Amino acid sequence: MPKSNDKLNKTKAKIYLDHASGAMSSSANPSAIHQLGLIEKKKLENARALVADILAVRPREVIFTSGATESNNLAILGLIQNFKNPHIVTSNIEHASVLEVCRHLEKTGKAEVTYVSVEPDGIVDPAKIKKALKKNTVLVSVMYANNEIGTVQYIPLISKAIRHFNKINNTKIYFHTDATQAINYLPIRISSLGVDLFSFNGAKIYGPKGVGVLYVKDSTPVLPIMFGGDQEMGLRPGTENALGAEALAEALKLVEKIKQKESKRLLVLRDYFVQKLTKTFPGVIINGDLLDRLPNNINITIPKIPSDLLVIELSARGIMTSAKSACKSGDGKASYVIQAINKDIKDTDGSLRFSLGQSTTRSDIDNTIKALSLILTKLSKWYN
Amino acid sequence: MPKSNDKLNKTKAKIYLDHASGAMSSSANPSAIHQLGLIEKKKLENARALVADILAVRPREVIFTSGATESNNLAILGLIQNFKNPHIVTSNIEHASVLEVCRHLEKTGKAEVTYVSVEPDGIVDPAKIKKALKKNTVLVSVMYANNEIGTVQYIPLISKAIRHFNKINNTKIYFHTDATQAINYLPIRISSLGVDLFSFNGAKIYGPKGVGVLYVKDSTPVLPIMFGGDQEMGLRPGTENALGAEALAEALKLVEKIKQKESKRLLVLRDYFVQKLTKTFPGVIINGDLLDRLPNNINITIPKIPSDLLVIELSARGIMTSAKSACKSGDGKASYVIQAINKDIKDTDGSLRFSLGQSTTRSDIDNTIKALSLILTKLSKWYN
Repeated sequence: MPKSNDKLNKTKAKIYLDHASGAMSSSANPSAIHQLGLIEKKKLENARALVADILAVRPREVIFTSGATESNNLAILGLIQNFKNPHIVTSNIEHASVLEVCRHLEKTGKAEVTYVSVEPDGIVDPAKIKKALKKNTVLVSVMYANNEIGTVQYIPLISKAIRHFNKINNTKIYFHTDATQAINYLPIRISSLGVDLFSFNGAKIYGPKGVGVLYVKDSTPVLPIMFGGDQEMGLRPGTENALGAEALAEALKLVEKIKQKESKRLLVLRDYFVQKLTKTFPGVIINGDLLDRLPNNINITIPKIPSDLLVIELSARGIMTSAKSACKSGDGKASYVIQAINKDIKDTDGSLRFSLGQSTTRSDIDNTIKALSLILTKLSKWYN
Repeated sequence: MPKSNDKLNKTKAKIYLDHASGAMSSSANPSAIHQLGLIEKKKLENARALVADILAVRPREVIFTSGATESNNLAILGLIQNFKNPHIVTSNIEHASVLEVCRHLEKTGKAEVTYVSVEPDGIVDPAKIKKALKKNTVLVSVMYANNEIGTVQYIPLISKAIRHFNKINNTKIYFHTDATQAINYLPIRISSLGVDLFSFNGAKIYGPKGVGVLYVKDSTPVLPIMFGGDQEMGLRPGTENALGAEALAEALKLVEKIKQKESKRLLVLRDYFVQKLTKTFPGVIINGDLLDRLPNNINITIPKIPSDLLVIELSARGIMTSAKSACKSGDGKASYVIQAINKDIKDTDGSLRFSLGQSTTRSDIDNTIKALSLILTKLSKWYN
């Protein structure tokens, strides 16, 4: 090591001649072994430790990805590679990044998939999941809370059912949950959930886009789905986005800190909203159970008026809502989630999702009810 | 549409009730169909149009990814899915995100791969690429400029060879180039290169980490490698990182603007550096051709002194360099690129990559030479 009286070292002047591994010295490549690389590496590992601490897991079990979609793909495609003739059990209201991975595996003959139908209240029955398990089942994937109707699934009960099946049949079925929508409001200590794989992202927790996490429990045999570097415990190649990981970890810390208080606040607002909606618009249907539900979610069906038109009319009045998952928006079809809980819903019946958050106030709700009244008065002339 | 005297609209107050698709109203989901979603969509599409304009291609041919590693994976894995018994031709000095994808395809029996050996000057001979083509070849992947030794490959000549082979044999072999290291300094109009697939990222062009681009020429049959949404022309699912795309596009615009001037400036600095190096350290070997080479790259071998030790000693003196690709750093082995051009190189021979950039000055080089002198004087006592 150089002596402390080394002139160059003392002046702390940095000469950056590693532009090929990362053009900006202020954000060097975390895999570079020089000082600035080590600083980035430390940033990355601090972020990993913080996330691990909040989930109450080991840092090496936390894999940073480019988002929840990649996390879900890595969890399912990465696990399935280990098995011959694998069987997957999932539900019919999963996010597209779980459902379409499963459909791809079916289509290409790489896995057999059972899609357990959700109950009319938007809850997946753990007993039905258990009934669907077979000797060649290797994975169950059920989301923690639904992105459209906000219903919360019985993850610990499903975990218990899987463990019971494993014990009796001497199998090892892994359990994945997409927790993207749950993170802000529900308990996320992994041990209390009993899952092996757990996905979420930065964009839904007031953090950065383009960054996600996959928790991979030790000895869960996930293989990489992309190739080219040993980053992220060998599971996710590519220059690590240390800044993004840091921002995600900080966002997670903040939502965790205010979780209880914010959940209570939104629950009051949500129930006020539901009350106003049912009183003002007797014809609307509230989709999904109101008890086992995220405190920030309201989803309604307004018969005979197209969803996209409702979203656009509200937007024109400065109110941002959505008809269904953004990943599936704008195709003019009814939501597959709403249709799964209510077979009478047609493509011509509109549904609206209101998802509340940190900025939401009571007057937002009052104004939304007013705007919706104006819109429905106008549109019902044409659509009824 | 609402009337212009609509009160809510006039005050421009935004009520954001779409937290489930993106928690922050300031960075909504680009696939949401409300106003704030459209603003993000526009940001994304403006970024795409800007990148397309600089590459002189159609916007729909520009796919945003999470980085060059994903771009390379998508290009190769995405194309290969279309074919039975496909054959790939690549070189033995590609980045790990090309080489390891190829090795994975070989190992899993999904493709046959020919690795064309680079010449001792670090250049891949287009004639050897042509010789390696077969009737079942579907893809050639040769990098534009090497990440370790900076040698520039004859992309237009390789393209010509492929077109010639295609014409004679009535085949359609696609051509991919990883341009990550080339973007800052070389021409990147796609038509002048003659490639079908072209990868790069934000991190190497003074832009953001976690964002990359894959150019996919119209009618190139690339299929997605992840599933869950129709974003990015159906090739890359997941909430679009509009902010990241915008930052990448702006970075590309800037490096394109100063490309000629900066290339000239760095060429002078680089040649000064090479001259100083060879004069001060007669024992060092300069790796790779000095003419067909990026203006910012110098790579030397210092026999018998371990690479990582050199990097750490320089780093301790405030000088950031690297031994090889950051994706492969720290494993104590010699660079596979250096060994490919010089079979006499052993794991105990150190190599150093100096990659210059916008911040680099002549005094940086003088100080680096001084520091390297001190280090070599010290280390040569132990290692010779």
